[in-house]
Amino acid sequence: METSFAIHKITLIGSGNVGTQLGMALYKSGHSISQVYSRTKKSADTLAKKLESKSITDLKLLDLNSDIYIIAIKDDVIADVVKQLRLKDKIVVHTSGSIPLQALSTASKNHGVFYPLQTISKSKVVDFRTIPICLEANTKKTFKLLQNLAKTISENVQEITSEQRQIIHLSAVFACNFSNHMYAIAASLLKKNHVPFAILKPLIAETASKIQFNDPQKMQTGPAVRGDYKTLKSQLKLLDGDKKLKLIYKLLSDDIIQYHQDS
Amino acid sequence: METSFAIHKITLIGSGNVGTQLGMALYKSGHSISQVYSRTKKSADTLAKKLESKSITDLKLLDLNSDIYIIAIKDDVIADVVKQLRLKDKIVVHTSGSIPLQALSTASKNHGVFYPLQTISKSKVVDFRTIPICLEANTKKTFKLLQNLAKTISENVQEITSEQRQIIHLSAVFACNFSNHMYAIAASLLKKNHVPFAILKPLIAETASKIQFNDPQKMQTGPAVRGDYKTLKSQLKLLDGDKKLKLIYKLLSDDIIQYHQDS
Repeated sequence: METSFAIHKITLIGSGNVGTQLGMALYKSGHSISQVYSRTKKSADTLAKKLESKSITDLKLLDLNSDIYIIAIKDDVIADVVKQLRLKDKIVVHTSGSIPLQALSTASKNHGVFYPLQTISKSKVVDFRTIPICLEANTKKTFKLLQNLAKTISENVQEITSEQRQIIHLSAVFACNFSNHMYAIAASLLKKNHVPFAILKPLIAETASKIQFNDPQKMQTGPAVRGDYKTLKSQLKLLDGDKKLKLIYKLLSDDIIQYHQDS
Repeated sequence: METSFAIHKITLIGSGNVGTQLGMALYKSGHSISQVYSRTKKSADTLAKKLESKSITDLKLLDLNSDIYIIAIKDDVIADVVKQLRLKDKIVVHTSGSIPLQALSTASKNHGVFYPLQTISKSKVVDFRTIPICLEANTKKTFKLLQNLAKTISENVQEITSEQRQIIHLSAVFACNFSNHMYAIAASLLKKNHVPFAILKPLIAETASKIQFNDPQKMQTGPAVRGDYKTLKSQLKLLDGDKKLKLIYKLLSDDIIQYHQDS
């Protein structure tokens, strides 16, 4: 793996989950974070302090001499921020799974996407080295620079088109957000019945570990895939008090049954 | 942890996923597996060979001199098998999450439940040491014996009532089977779009790892918990060709939104 390491001067636009963790990873890799922008002063200050950077809450105060501007804010406010950016030929990227590359075209001649495919919380430090960084850029030169930047924090850097990225993001919602919600439902069911959630932790770890080397569909277990309708019925009965949970149970069990009939 | 180790003579009724892996764990811990019963000769033979045991396909040939009889068969055939058992005071247990202890009362005076809370496939060896073994028995003496047996294969042995076990099993369906189905859906979406599933593996590992030390609800990320309706809408649009998947997406996203409004 050939990497030409260069220290970049980076401006972070956004200090949420991704902004915080990505900023910290870049800072630890030796890059200089010149400014942190957030609408919220406290949030900008907190992150700026961690990154030995300066905080701003007004985009008019943006330092125009950074090499790279990273937009790590909620998808639905990206367009508003982009409107306010005139960065000429500076590289500007966003970190979103869903927003097309094209959305940045008015902000600078050189734009790209720098999408870390991971579930990122402010409070939990993540190891970026194994995180797939999905890159896209409007020119080869910009792509090369982003690739070198990404390689300073991750060993898993990939070129991904906007169309592929949309599907990857959608898949990630199922594999991460929805499976995490299944954990949350399980935790809530146990809590109501005074059983500690800890009892499920080895099961959750093994379920996720199994698919690292096996096709998830082939690893399926439980009453639905066994066609054990008696247990399905008795579990539905246990959910009698919760109409919505019952619907989720039924829909997912039916879908498991159908998946395995089709395969 | 006080453990009085005794080598037991065990008969296995069932040679499926749980029968195979539990049988192997007990065999490796030094117990003697005297017989393996399965309706399917090939299945009984395969497991019996692994366990240096004898195979039978007819319950009439059951050796009545074992210490413990472990019923590890599908829930909906347990009642049929139990009807055929007259084991006097020998200990008989089942390994099911859903079937009450009481279901074994006609088989023997001494009965119990030996429920390993894990996702178990025939082909993947599991490390039983961390698996919670949920125990229940109709007498203190039987419980004590089962506890000692369980401790020879696991460091996580717990007393769990039939009522608690039902809820634990239901929670396990959400936390394991349904989250695994989310992985299967994600894999299928990626496959259709020619993106290797491997790109999601670090995300799945981190999602499961996060909840080992944190409340899953607090660890939630993604468009639904962010209230990012624009992304929710565009992802629903991506699912336009698949009515059922769209319904699952909508239902789970709504439920995440509601969970976080209520909390």
